Amino acid sequence: MTQQQRQTLDELLRHAPFDIGGELGEQRALFHEMIASVPPPEDVMATPGRLGGIPVVTVETPGDDSSAVVLYFHGGAYALGSAGDSVGLAADVARRVGVRAVSVDYRLAPEHPFPAAVDDAVAAYRALLADGTPSSEVAFVGESAGGGLVVATLVALKEAGLPQPSSAVVFSPWADLTLSGDSLTGKADVDPALTAKGLQIRARDYLGETDPATPLASPVFADLTGLAPLLIQVGSHEILLDDAVRLAARAAEHDVAVELQVWPQVPHVFQGFAALLDDADAALTSAAAFTRAHWPAG
Amino acid sequence: MTQQQRQTLDELLRHAPFDIGGELGEQRALFHEMIASVPPPEDVMATPGRLGGIPVVTVETPGDDSSAVVLYFHGGAYALGSAGDSVGLAADVARRVGVRAVSVDYRLAPEHPFPAAVDDAVAAYRALLADGTPSSEVAFVGESAGGGLVVATLVALKEAGLPQPSSAVVFSPWADLTLSGDSLTGKADVDPALTAKGLQIRARDYLGETDPATPLASPVFADLTGLAPLLIQVGSHEILLDDAVRLAARAAEHDVAVELQVWPQVPHVFQGFAALLDDADAALTSAAAFTRAHWPAG
Repeated sequence: MTQQQRQTLDELLRHAPFDIGGELGEQRALFHEMIASVPPPEDVMATPGRLGGIPVVTVETPGDDSSAVVLYFHGGAYALGSAGDSVGLAADVARRVGVRAVSVDYRLAPEHPFPAAVDDAVAAYRALLADGTPSSEVAFVGESAGGGLVVATLVALKEAGLPQPSSAVVFSPWADLTLSGDSLTGKADVDPALTAKGLQIRARDYLGETDPATPLASPVFADLTGLAPLLIQVGSHEILLDDAVRLAARAAEHDVAVELQVWPQVPHVFQGFAALLDDADAALTSAAAFTRAHWPAG
Repeated sequence: MTQQQRQTLDELLRHAPFDIGGELGEQRALFHEMIASVPPPEDVMATPGRLGGIPVVTVETPGDDSSAVVLYFHGGAYALGSAGDSVGLAADVARRVGVRAVSVDYRLAPEHPFPAAVDDAVAAYRALLADGTPSSEVAFVGESAGGGLVVATLVALKEAGLPQPSSAVVFSPWADLTLSGDSLTGKADVDPALTAKGLQIRARDYLGETDPATPLASPVFADLTGLAPLLIQVGSHEILLDDAVRLAARAAEHDVAVELQVWPQVPHVFQGFAALLDDADAALTSAAAFTRAHWPAG
């Protein structure tokens, strides 16, 4: 069953018109349409708002009566996607953790290049703390570029002298904008969703003249000492596999409590396909258990 | 509390007379004494026996009424330790999984060099299957050299056309006898237990004239495709950190369902110190949950 599910998803993605490196106006619309084609369940409430001046969408599911919060960071290679587009996956996470998610609409490139996304992430978290939520009751979750952004933000918080959140979970993080991982070529044939060429275009959009190895854009090169406990999930059928593996290696070297979970033969951010993939449900359940285990009452 | 526990353990190990690279007769006795100083709880029953001609010790704890079995592989750099010495840790695992453990007394080097240990591991597993235990009800667990041996055995089983067990858990695996990991030097100062020099001596004992990069001695260089789901646990204060990280990377590359858990600031096979370290208890609990999740009824 699971093997058939994996094949179905692979074919679905291979036939999708979306191209991560394509013309931005067109791809933003396609990305939105692709996600909008699977609307969130009816019991999900999504409310736009602001946090520290940053637009956010608060995502609530029945029974999330905890005061704790998941701060959520969507994917889209820093140039696509939105908090609105992320409601489905953010709700899948929030429901399993049993809290509300606040999805951050950080500014996108190329209109707002690096470090705009990191600045917005820090501002949103800072506002959450200022509003009275203790850092121990905030967990970060992010997917793809949002996963890289989560780790970059943890580094930025440390540098700013702000407390770390309780934990962080990243799905298929894009953590090396120099695109130096072996899997960029080694997994190119089996990755149905991403291309190195496409990511290179988006990296340039985000970075402009900034060195792609700068730690706040490529946290595989950052000093990760002192970061919150980190769970990294990744599929083995993605060119960003090595971003996940090297992020785990770096975190381990720097004495971070880090966990890496590799799901075989599934693609980039497979957690977004829980409706048709048992692996996605299992990964989300595991991510939620990790998050809950780090709450004060965990 | 946990930080104090970590410091206590670190000092305890730094002052222990045991030297992994020392004269074998003396070190075998010291290794045994060190372990015998903490006898297993009184409710643990350890029964010597044979499995496929290989000496084993069956370790039972109250309530392990399942037909499933943990096949356990002790540590000791392929030259020290025994199934008898491993009873305490094997019981800690078995109790949490809720099954009996069968600890394999594979032959030791230099008296019995590579591939004697792998041959004995395969023979014991083969006998377990021949006795009627389905492969789906066998899980492998191993520590240190026993962890490397677990992975080498999984590779050997594949090559022999035998079915994989349900899952495998390895604590601080020694998986690269070429000793090429960066942590061999990078973590030398913070590792209170092992030295690269000592491991080099033991690698020579085990390998004789065999190339240290041979995949069945150093599974970080093996083709891991088709291996059972694998959980790798490691401390960040050990020179073998990179063995664990690179084993996870290799497994991920080869589409194995693999999980890596890094515990910060704890030493080699910290799971052996559950009596004084909360991290050890948490790691054992996590290892047991992983094992149970892969039983047929899991």
